[in-house]
Amino acid sequence: MADTTDTGADEAEIRRLLEERAAAMRAKDVQASLARIAPDVVTYELAPPLRYAGDQARDPGGLQEWYDSFTGPVGIESRDLKVFVGGDVAFCHGLALLTGERAGGEKSRVWFRETVGLRRTGGRWEIVHAHASVPLYMDGSGKAALDLEP
Amino acid sequence: MADTTDTGADEAEIRRLLEERAAAMRAKDVQASLARIAPDVVTYELAPPLRYAGDQARDPGGLQEWYDSFTGPVGIESRDLKVFVGGDVAFCHGLALLTGERAGGEKSRVWFRETVGLRRTGGRWEIVHAHASVPLYMDGSGKAALDLEP
Repeated sequence: MADTTDTGADEAEIRRLLEERAAAMRAKDVQASLARIAPDVVTYELAPPLRYAGDQARDPGGLQEWYDSFTGPVGIESRDLKVFVGGDVAFCHGLALLTGERAGGEKSRVWFRETVGLRRTGGRWEIVHAHASVPLYMDGSGKAALDLEP
Repeated sequence: MADTTDTGADEAEIRRLLEERAAAMRAKDVQASLARIAPDVVTYELAPPLRYAGDQARDPGGLQEWYDSFTGPVGIESRDLKVFVGGDVAFCHGLALLTGERAGGEKSRVWFRETVGLRRTGGRWEIVHAHASVPLYMDGSGKAALDLEP
């Protein structure tokens, strides 16, 4: 089957969307962070529970609280980002480095994995799924692997 | 843009592929487990490192070793599986319950999240990405959340 859409332009638009989302996080801007999240989104976050859906996954209060837990700026950088586009559906995956200083002076620095699923509705790409995680050590400690480097 | 493909049939085919993959896992069948994994796959597994790519993500020896670590059958059940298809690209997400008895009599029972990305190449759907994880507790313990229920 021949491609009927210019997936190169779609990929560029999706990469821009993700870059704007990262910029919103760095600016701790709740409204901008949620701007491209679909109403029926399902997310798998770093924190429990297993699954967030809809308004629970787009809760401005919860996000504000998380941003407020950083005393200074939030740093986010992505790496090895790969984008797949087909018609009105796309997904991407990559590694991300989150940095910042928490209340109490504790410095956070953690590499995690992220997969994002998108759907184009009314000509506009929206995030319908996001999955963020760290692996866990299989040494019986039950510890999350928070100190890995790519 | 009108749909030019019957995404209903594609979704059914992808659900069948995932069910065959689950059946291969229950049967501890290494070859069948890897049958639909693309050569350029990138996976984010429950265990470190952060990222597996290509042959490292399709290592029959490592998979055999993992299957051998179960003394009896491996149980895998999925829940809340959602599939998105657009042209030759698709992704799905859902929760999964892994059960089994490990060497030494230890019983495993863990709910995890999984996102799978697929691409159709030469008329055949293949897995190009898989992301499996559990959340981590944010109580300062650094523990992975292995005891959650959906």
